[in-house]
Order: sequence, then C-alpha cells, then structure tokens
Amino acid sequence: MNSLKNGWWSERCELWPGVCLSLEVDEVLHESKSQYQDILVLKTKNHGRALILDGIIQCTEADEFTYQEMIAFLPLCCHKSPKKVLVIGGGDGGVAREVAKHPYVESITQVEIDAEVLEVSKKYLPFMGKGLSHPKLTLHVADGFDFMAQHQEEFDVIITDSSDPVGPAVSLFQKEYFEMMRSALKPGGIVCSQSGTFYANIEQVTQTLNHCRSVFASAALAYVTVPTYPTGQIAFVLGSCDPEIKFDIPSISFTDDELEQMQLRYYSSDIHRAAFVLPRFAKKILSNESSTL
Amino acid sequence: MNSLKNGWWSERCELWPGVCLSLEVDEVLHESKSQYQDILVLKTKNHGRALILDGIIQCTEADEFTYQEMIAFLPLCCHKSPKKVLVIGGGDGGVAREVAKHPYVESITQVEIDAEVLEVSKKYLPFMGKGLSHPKLTLHVADGFDFMAQHQEEFDVIITDSSDPVGPAVSLFQKEYFEMMRSALKPGGIVCSQSGTFYANIEQVTQTLNHCRSVFASAALAYVTVPTYPTGQIAFVLGSCDPEIKFDIPSISFTDDELEQMQLRYYSSDIHRAAFVLPRFAKKILSNESSTL
Repeated sequence: MNSLKNGWWSERCELWPGVCLSLEVDEVLHESKSQYQDILVLKTKNHGRALILDGIIQCTEADEFTYQEMIAFLPLCCHKSPKKVLVIGGGDGGVAREVAKHPYVESITQVEIDAEVLEVSKKYLPFMGKGLSHPKLTLHVADGFDFMAQHQEEFDVIITDSSDPVGPAVSLFQKEYFEMMRSALKPGGIVCSQSGTFYANIEQVTQTLNHCRSVFASAALAYVTVPTYPTGQIAFVLGSCDPEIKFDIPSISFTDDELEQMQLRYYSSDIHRAAFVLPRFAKKILSNESSTL
Repeated sequence: MNSLKNGWWSERCELWPGVCLSLEVDEVLHESKSQYQDILVLKTKNHGRALILDGIIQCTEADEFTYQEMIAFLPLCCHKSPKKVLVIGGGDGGVAREVAKHPYVESITQVEIDAEVLEVSKKYLPFMGKGLSHPKLTLHVADGFDFMAQHQEEFDVIITDSSDPVGPAVSLFQKEYFEMMRSALKPGGIVCSQSGTFYANIEQVTQTLNHCRSVFASAALAYVTVPTYPTGQIAFVLGSCDPEIKFDIPSISFTDDELEQMQLRYYSSDIHRAAFVLPRFAKKILSNESSTL
C-alpha cells in the first residue's frame, strides 16, 4: 500500500481515503518486520528522522513534540497530584520523555508489546528513545490488557499512546479497554487515549468518546495540531470517575520559566484550555451523548 | 512542479519543502492559463471539488468552510459594527459568502484581479461561487492597491484572501500593503490577512505580523485548522488602529441558534477566543516585537 519511490515515501490508508502525505527521503535507516508489525525508520530531507509502523507515520523529529507534550501534559495537568503514571504503548519513548518532566510524577510504568520498537527507537530515534532510559521509568514488554488485569487501583494517570485502530491496536479503542483502565486507576484518576481525527473519522472518534462516557463519570475530547498526521491534527479522549472534574481547567499552572525549563514547546495552560474547544461541527456531533454513529 | 499522475494530483512547493500532499482525482473539470495564473479545477474522489492556482490548493469542497468562516468572522466579530466590508482577492467567492451572513454587514466591496477565477468559480465551484452573486456584494475586477488608493477611510473591515507569497501575491504581504489598508479603513476599523503557516514558515509569518505591527496600533495572530493546507493549518494577521482592542474577545456573541441559522460549521465565540492561543514555540517567536527574523 505504502511505498518509497523516486526518493519520496508515501502514506496511504483506508482510514483517510483519497488523500496521501509524502515525505522526501534521504536514507532508509532501518527496515524490519517484528512479531507485531512492519518497522521503518527514515532520515527525511526536511522533517528529521521518522518512525513508520505498518506503513503509517507515527512521528517525525520535526513535529513529534506537539503530540507527545499534549498526550502527556493534558491528563497530568487535569490531576492534582499525578504521582504514579502508566503508559500503554508509546514504544518510541516520546511520551515517557514528556511525562518524566512533570515535577509531581514519581514513577512511570510503561507497557509496550513490541520489544523491537523499543530497540529501534533507542538506536535510531534517540531524541525520543532517551525517554526509555529515564530513572523514573520501569519498562515492561507485555500486553497492556494482561498487565492492567494484575494491577488494580494503582495509577493516578493512564496514557494510551497507540497506533491507529487498524490491526493490533483495534482493541485499545473498545469499551472493554476503558473498563480495564478504570479498574487500574486509583480513585480520582485520569485516562487519556489518542483517538484519531474528527475531520476524517468522526464516527470513530464519536465511538471512542462514547465508550469512554459509558465507563467514566466524565469524558471530554481535546486535540493537538500535528502537521505530518492525517488532516494535520489528532484528538485525545480523556476520562475520569470524578463527575465534577473540569478537564479544560488545568489543576496546576506552570510559569513560563517552568515551561521553559521543562523544554515544553507546545503546551501551556492557555493551550490546555484551548485544546478542548472544538470546531462547531465536531462539537455538535460529539456532544450528542446518545449518538450511535 | 506539480502533477497529475496515475489518478493522483500532487502539490509541491518551495514554501514547504520535503513534504507533498496528494489528492485522488476522478476528473479534471477545468484547466486554463489566465493573464495572472494557471487555473485548475478537479473533481476529487473524497474531497469534493478543488480549486488549484499555480499548482497550489486554494480550497477543497470538503474543508474550505473552516478557512472561509474564520477569515471572515474573526475580523467581523472583533468590530462592534462592521457595516462596510472590503474583500481583496477571494475570487472563489467563499469569503463573500461568509461575510454576507453577518447580520450587521450592509455592503461588501470585493476587488479581485483575475476575472477568469471569478468565472471559473461561478461555473465549477457553485458552493463558493454563489457568494459572488449576493445582493450585498459589489464586485470589481481590479488591482487591490489601485482600488484602495482611491478609497480613503471608507471601510470598517478589510479582509485579504490572497494566494501564498510566491508570484503575484507577494506585494500583499509587504508593509506598503498594510499602509494602504490603514488609509482605506474608517477609524476603529479592522484588517485581517491570511499569513501562511507558523510550522513551515515562521519567518514569513513573523515578517507579516511585524509589518502589521509597524503600521497598526494593535496586531495579533490567530489560526484555523485546514486539513488540505500545508501543515494542516493557516494563520491570520489582524490589525487595528485601536490600541485598546482585545482581538481575542469577540465584540458580538451569537447564540447557537444564530450560528446554526448562518450555517456556521467552524466558528463560535469559543473558537474565536481559542484561535488566538498559539502553541508555545510560535508565541515565543512571534511575541518578540523586535524580532528581525
């Protein structure tokens, strides 16, 4: 489906039909087939290094910061005291890198199913892979479902950094997965999962949000702009058992100096609030709780 | 540079190197070379009809509403009483279509340099071209500079819907252009110009914003997500002679019923406020008034 031709790598996928993003490539740094997926690392001409799994861009060096900062800091800053964090997926290490920056975080447990992604990232994508060596982090190569079944009421925040809902990641977008997360959360905990794009896949976003709503007392959708992702943005579903929570009001506001020290390039308290403001068409569809789309 | 090959049309441009968006094409509806530019209209497989000028996507039926609504309603809703509006460019008719929706607007004067774009849009892109037949609109085929030189202190809002700063539109991004707009504005007037993307071209965005700052007492940057634009979003520079203006606080808030009646799919007062909240890296560079980037 996807290909490297005449020095350009092109991404096509049934999830966003009729449109295709291509990146100009200097060099193929790595290509392999793990037990779970095809792994490709490119040195691109203008977007630094890029990680591609099963033919889909996961991140480029040029813009991965927007996604990683937001999937980490949105839920962390919705929580008053995010001490114990669980990351499901996130094999490139970028989410761990960001979570580790939050001053209240004491421990990060990460569960990635594909050991080969971890190795490839450490070797070829050190700007993200360095997150995997952080002293706050304990890394498990395992299935997220199995892991959570053995860890009840243990985490303040659970972040799911998965690939898109085609192939192995499909189960991470279903109701059972949200139920597993709820049981692994401490009271007052927060979950945050990537949930695709409301431009190309509003039915899927609605479905994921409705799963979250059916399991948690409160749920909300936020989004971040990511130039190399399909439609240029991606959404996050957030859930909490606290019916009173206001996701769009950060419970901790960092000063500009603190943000600078944490090397945050996208996130700020203002961006936190703005990320929950959806275009009217999306709000209209998604606010319909009984939507069966 | 850009091409239709194997049923896909591809956009490459020196302004966003190393990346290329392609659209799957059902049919080429129109292709011509006007006095000013190459004009191409495609029927795409999944994005409706698309207008392409000099090889650059101007709008697709699927997502043009986001851009047109925001370039129109941001400045209109910054003004307390936007009665007389000038649109420079906007030959496809989409901006006129949106401006005409605002209940306070009494007259729209539009100045488009390329008569052929107007004809092509009326014929092949009626969803936008219908804006060109609105009873509030007076259309001039002329150069925007020349027109403004003869119209002093006449408009409440001036919207510049231009193509990108390569070729004929370069002059619309320069200081002299902002000076022309200031002299054509009534006291308390507002200008709004498209100004590219801060992901791929922050130097150009900074330069345009600094021109605006040097001419107007107040200036600000906002942005909108547009999936088929380079990097998935585009910024607007807004300027006003009022040093006290708060661009991010709409002076008029429409009810949801009113927004619905106006068929606004992107704009709302909440989106208005959020559009001015920039990612930290962009805010940092752009807030430096003395930036000489």
